[in-house]
Amino acid sequence: MNRPRPFIPICLLFNLGLLGAATAAPIVNTDYQETAEKITRLGLTENYAYTILSKITRIGPRLTGSPRAAAAVELIRQEMVDLGLDNVHLEPTVVGRWVRGEVEEGRLVSSLLGTLPLSICALGGSTATPEDGLQAGVLEVKSFQELRALGDKARGKIIFFNRPMDPTRIDTFQAYGEAAEQRVLGAVEAAKAGGVAALVRSLTLGESEFPHTGLMQYRPGAAQLPAAAISTRGADILSRSLKIDPELIVHLKTSCATLFPVTSYNVVGEIKGAEKPAEIILLGAHLDSWDLGEGAHDDGAGCAHIIEALRLLKLTDCRPKRTVRGVLFMDEEFGGTGGRDYARSERRKGERHLAALESDRGGFLPVGFGVGGGEAVEQKVQSWHPLLRPLGILWIGPGGGGVDISPLAESGAVLMGIVPDSQRYFDFHHSSQDVLAAVHPRELELGAIATAILGFLLAQEGI
Amino acid sequence: MNRPRPFIPICLLFNLGLLGAATAAPIVNTDYQETAEKITRLGLTENYAYTILSKITRIGPRLTGSPRAAAAVELIRQEMVDLGLDNVHLEPTVVGRWVRGEVEEGRLVSSLLGTLPLSICALGGSTATPEDGLQAGVLEVKSFQELRALGDKARGKIIFFNRPMDPTRIDTFQAYGEAAEQRVLGAVEAAKAGGVAALVRSLTLGESEFPHTGLMQYRPGAAQLPAAAISTRGADILSRSLKIDPELIVHLKTSCATLFPVTSYNVVGEIKGAEKPAEIILLGAHLDSWDLGEGAHDDGAGCAHIIEALRLLKLTDCRPKRTVRGVLFMDEEFGGTGGRDYARSERRKGERHLAALESDRGGFLPVGFGVGGGEAVEQKVQSWHPLLRPLGILWIGPGGGGVDISPLAESGAVLMGIVPDSQRYFDFHHSSQDVLAAVHPRELELGAIATAILGFLLAQEGI
Repeated sequence: MNRPRPFIPICLLFNLGLLGAATAAPIVNTDYQETAEKITRLGLTENYAYTILSKITRIGPRLTGSPRAAAAVELIRQEMVDLGLDNVHLEPTVVGRWVRGEVEEGRLVSSLLGTLPLSICALGGSTATPEDGLQAGVLEVKSFQELRALGDKARGKIIFFNRPMDPTRIDTFQAYGEAAEQRVLGAVEAAKAGGVAALVRSLTLGESEFPHTGLMQYRPGAAQLPAAAISTRGADILSRSLKIDPELIVHLKTSCATLFPVTSYNVVGEIKGAEKPAEIILLGAHLDSWDLGEGAHDDGAGCAHIIEALRLLKLTDCRPKRTVRGVLFMDEEFGGTGGRDYARSERRKGERHLAALESDRGGFLPVGFGVGGGEAVEQKVQSWHPLLRPLGILWIGPGGGGVDISPLAESGAVLMGIVPDSQRYFDFHHSSQDVLAAVHPRELELGAIATAILGFLLAQEGI
Repeated sequence: MNRPRPFIPICLLFNLGLLGAATAAPIVNTDYQETAEKITRLGLTENYAYTILSKITRIGPRLTGSPRAAAAVELIRQEMVDLGLDNVHLEPTVVGRWVRGEVEEGRLVSSLLGTLPLSICALGGSTATPEDGLQAGVLEVKSFQELRALGDKARGKIIFFNRPMDPTRIDTFQAYGEAAEQRVLGAVEAAKAGGVAALVRSLTLGESEFPHTGLMQYRPGAAQLPAAAISTRGADILSRSLKIDPELIVHLKTSCATLFPVTSYNVVGEIKGAEKPAEIILLGAHLDSWDLGEGAHDDGAGCAHIIEALRLLKLTDCRPKRTVRGVLFMDEEFGGTGGRDYARSERRKGERHLAALESDRGGFLPVGFGVGGGEAVEQKVQSWHPLLRPLGILWIGPGGGGVDISPLAESGAVLMGIVPDSQRYFDFHHSSQDVLAAVHPRELELGAIATAILGFLLAQEGI
């Protein structure tokens, strides 16, 4: 477009009843309105969420238990101190430690088609191949059911799980959920079938060059086979090659290993409630990341949302009635020990967590909030919608939760989650592409602003 | 995030009354539902909008009147023929032709600070500097009012308009609209004040290296000064340098020129209405672009939306009652001659344009539709919202229009516009960064799908 035209004033739209159903009794508290506007102006002027994120990503990948994860803990602790947050401290959590090692190689060898490198990476938690690698024929399947039906054909083979994420799902997290069992349990199923390794199509939409890692698991009683992800482009090449030469061989070599557990930390800082300090509104994200990129969207962006939300509340002098606490958890990616240890810590005695909101869906344009706890709770949060709409938050509905905060549900906390646009998330997720440059400063900041406003309203109004 | 978690099913959210205000009497036409789902599945499976866009951007920039613009006309005509559209033809329009020329240089020269190159580009329609360039002192202003108040201080100076887009506007088109007069009329105001050139801060948010061009205008009675845009980074450097050395000199050299008008074309193709072929639902975008990038978001994305929408309607065998016509207009960027000539063409006799929808806000995630024509029309379109919500279209409200289709308002057409997320648009707009890689295939496709569904509903239900 060319010359400035009559723009569509988004704010106006919201006053036309178009989206007004859920706001039969909206809060028309002008103080809240003013606070929300102050937070928004400050956020969009300074874009400090991106500055926080750049500090985090500069450390590099923050694999659970790694020295870089420890550096991130110290960075965030110091950042919280510098922001003048209350009660800044670390809470220990003993976490597992898996390392990728130096060597990762994949190769297709066919007497008909020649040799081709395949872009692969070990899955998190996997055992390594023998030192010289392993080579075997390949059995391609789209599901565990198909694998089971093939019976003896799997014996001695690399089982190649090649079910793509369904592109027709508009919510890409749904497509992820439907395809992820291949990654998580592919090695178990391959072992049961008599295979020698699991090779899993990367969980991303479309064709790309980069493998996407992620957690895999073993089960007692099944052999612990090496498991690796292959890029979607590699998977398509391998699949086409198998049609031409079903006898082709794949070589895999990985050197990953599980080391001894180490002590790491959740990082905690808060704005103490002026009236009910023991009532906590927790804003959470996870500080650990996968090791291939910089963990920018997953979950550096979430960390930036939380720290920036606290900074905005602090600098606009909001003085919440209840405590607004930021917790950057350790070890979401390998099993959530940080979240569990936080919930059961001695320090929780005398505290009451009213609500816990997690940001762990990337730093894209925020479009909604998922709210657990049933209809009445949802309706209460929906009554604040007019304060969030100007940001582009267009729905508040059932949902919420996350690995880190879910242990708090037991003690009655309402779980919530910020939901950004999902279209681009899996382009980056768990891959070398998840770097600072993949995050847009304004999209990220809008998420932080929305989190700050919702956190503030929860602190003032309770739930 | 790590393991697949209970996702938030977006579709479910829409059934909870949260966004249901405007849908008191929704159309529960299962045929429409089925059609919308067919269109969505086909679109997201094939992502053909991106293929169309890649064909268009491969031509390169399509400056009005240029040979590449002519190549784009032929590409789209052939594409329409290949898709089996009806009544594919070109409609001539005589357009102006401006060329950038070979030379564009900017340089800051200061006895205190030394010499620095400045990243500049001529604005569209500008005269060139003298062949050897021009050099002058610089007067920085933030508004026309400030310039006028400075009186004689402007004499002999390069007037440097340095008002940034307001980052606190959540709708970035609003910020653009508020800052754009500097670009459009800066040269006129500079001439009135006795200046020798206009140098205008690029219309983009944040700091970047790349200048953003766009149309500027002259007025009778004022000298035709050369006008150029400077990158926001260059503008910040120049502004800081002026504080240290107000006597610094800027050299500008441009070689742009306005040539003779040439005949170009709007490209038209349609799916003829089965029952009321003379009643037209027009889907429009513009084929011309600025010359610095590939015109990917502006407005290759709009062109891709329209062609893909027609393809989806054709392939799903929708057989609309009224004619759904795609028009890719020429010369939006230099004044909209294509749109005007389309509206007043002899060919319009016997036709009745019920609605005209333009896509000219980029290929980002679609979030809404602007609808002109008043409340009753709006309510009718809102009653179809349930069919668009699953795509993430979260509002339908007042707005719509665009340079190309606005001449159709006179004859009673309802003007509409698709509104994608605006946060990233001005990072690319009118700059060398507006290339294919800046467009996301799924975001683009969702816009095409939404356009197809709305176009179909308009064709069946009228307005």
